[in-house]
Amino acid sequence: MIPSFRVIVPAGGSGTRLWPLSRAGAPKFLLDLTGAGRTLLQATVDRLTPLTGPDGVVVVTGSRHERDVLAQVDVSRANVLAEPSPRGSMAAIGLAAAVLVEREGDVVVGSFAADHVISGEGFADAVRQAVVAARAGYVVTVGITATHPSTAFGYVQAGERLDVAGAPDLRLAPGFTEKPDAATASAYLDSGGYFWNAGMFVVRAEVLLGHLERLHPALHEGLRIIAAAWDTDRRWEAVERHWYGLENFAIDHAIAEPVAAEGGVAVVPGSFEWDDVGDFSTLAALLPADDAGMHVLGDASRVVAVDTLDGLVVPGTGRTIAVLGLDDVVVVDTPDAVLVTTRERAQDVRAVVDALKAAGSKLL
Amino acid sequence: MIPSFRVIVPAGGSGTRLWPLSRAGAPKFLLDLTGAGRTLLQATVDRLTPLTGPDGVVVVTGSRHERDVLAQVDVSRANVLAEPSPRGSMAAIGLAAAVLVEREGDVVVGSFAADHVISGEGFADAVRQAVVAARAGYVVTVGITATHPSTAFGYVQAGERLDVAGAPDLRLAPGFTEKPDAATASAYLDSGGYFWNAGMFVVRAEVLLGHLERLHPALHEGLRIIAAAWDTDRRWEAVERHWYGLENFAIDHAIAEPVAAEGGVAVVPGSFEWDDVGDFSTLAALLPADDAGMHVLGDASRVVAVDTLDGLVVPGTGRTIAVLGLDDVVVVDTPDAVLVTTRERAQDVRAVVDALKAAGSKLL
Repeated sequence: MIPSFRVIVPAGGSGTRLWPLSRAGAPKFLLDLTGAGRTLLQATVDRLTPLTGPDGVVVVTGSRHERDVLAQVDVSRANVLAEPSPRGSMAAIGLAAAVLVEREGDVVVGSFAADHVISGEGFADAVRQAVVAARAGYVVTVGITATHPSTAFGYVQAGERLDVAGAPDLRLAPGFTEKPDAATASAYLDSGGYFWNAGMFVVRAEVLLGHLERLHPALHEGLRIIAAAWDTDRRWEAVERHWYGLENFAIDHAIAEPVAAEGGVAVVPGSFEWDDVGDFSTLAALLPADDAGMHVLGDASRVVAVDTLDGLVVPGTGRTIAVLGLDDVVVVDTPDAVLVTTRERAQDVRAVVDALKAAGSKLL
Repeated sequence: MIPSFRVIVPAGGSGTRLWPLSRAGAPKFLLDLTGAGRTLLQATVDRLTPLTGPDGVVVVTGSRHERDVLAQVDVSRANVLAEPSPRGSMAAIGLAAAVLVEREGDVVVGSFAADHVISGEGFADAVRQAVVAARAGYVVTVGITATHPSTAFGYVQAGERLDVAGAPDLRLAPGFTEKPDAATASAYLDSGGYFWNAGMFVVRAEVLLGHLERLHPALHEGLRIIAAAWDTDRRWEAVERHWYGLENFAIDHAIAEPVAAEGGVAVVPGSFEWDDVGDFSTLAALLPADDAGMHVLGDASRVVAVDTLDGLVVPGTGRTIAVLGLDDVVVVDTPDAVLVTTRERAQDVRAVVDALKAAGSKLL
């Protein structure tokens, strides 16, 4: 347990590229995508609660998911902040930070996505170092040591080592980059100076809000007003008046990038295994292959695979799924929709969702 | 209507290569595979009844399908002959011929499979010519004019023209061949002397039974005994005593091939469209492609196809089937099983069925 450390878990996004498994009403973070018996949100809270101690995790989610979040994790009702509508990760994290300041003063907050998969050793140590650096005033990110030249992730650049006691791996982070092309990703990997940006930020709440006040004063003011009213009977009035006018930013663009350019961001490299489970190909890679060379999420006895390798089958209805003569195929079976594609096209599942939207489908 | 002409429709076979659409309990002939609103059996009886007149079609099927056959087609209970167990097409057709001889004397019988698809012009004319030739003593087959060098069908060889009044297209058929390789199939097509063997045989009942008596006397004797008892209260006793010992032959091997070698088989070429709907690739070819280039058997509004051409989707449960980035794919959705394969591998669906059998599956 780390003293005066609080965790913010923004639980949003529908995981469009994981349709039909993930839906607007049943987004990725509410699903068990590893077959471990815990949803991604549950695994996230399981991982973080030991670092904060009891009542130290705050989940920010859409109001339509509040009930499901409360049903899945042992977090008090007060610690589930329901957004009336999505306003981006900056508003979500900023609101939670401002509410925590109202409740507890200037704690260190760490923001960790609800729908990533983490395994292996080193996560807690990296967070501990990040908290130490945050107390020194930095916005700290945990960068993931790249294991291959991924073009699916953004990167954080690592610069000179910083001399902060208790954070031996800490380095300055002069900048962030968007998802690179393959050649750039290879160069990043070879250089050793770039880490995957997992969207983990650790920072003193007042440092975060100070940057926000300076860079986006209107957003800061709205969030402070709402936070001051949050635990009172004026919450609904404040939300009603101020939430819908808030600017919609990702925290990366709103804070991390400009502050990095100013020299205010540091990075702790983490060598644990991390994945954002962004699409079905990534999901397949997380699951072991069975004897027939097929990755299965669910009851493997429902899968008959003949002359097929390295595909992914999600038997989600008790039906038997037979696959013959197709490598790298993806078959996702749900009660109202079946998706058939390939791992190569996994990033394009969005096109199916767009087609369904255009047709006015209710399956989203 | 052709006088003294009776039709035998052997309705057997489970259509293994059309699993999971076709099952042991719901074989191919009981299914509507063209989207026309009629099952293959219904279309077969619809096509043949005008040639025989009322009560002229006899269906031979397994006892487990008797009820379904009676529910689907307007054939009297007496004209549905239920086999206690499968004994091959020779026993099925021979039994029906022998029962017809008992009931009506030496009529001309024509045997036509219950699970083929026929369209276009010329079928009735070909059958008429075949009946004329049958009265002259030939075993007559209707050969289908090949439209491409198919390796999926057997062929019947056409020899010299025969001078039979009323059958201007009649030719001697010196032999049959098994499914050829691609080069041989091309040579057959170029020669113009080979027709697809559609398993249609037209012959005087006593000519057929005479060949059978000569070539397979034990089988002939068993069938005659069962047929003599069929319409009496001794049927069950005769079936019980004689059916299970009958030799299991296909009519091609038992009669057609040896009699062809003796000069007793003739062929009437038919230029109508015919297909045995042997696998999902053939089925796809029978169905028009929609705007997205997908062949759909069923409710096309249930199919979302993105970047995919020439595949087959069978939406059989009301669920939406989304296909992304796979050409020539086959997706068959049923309440308890989903098949995903390619048209190229359509002939190998048997391997899936074998795997299910080996696993003791009840989905067959």
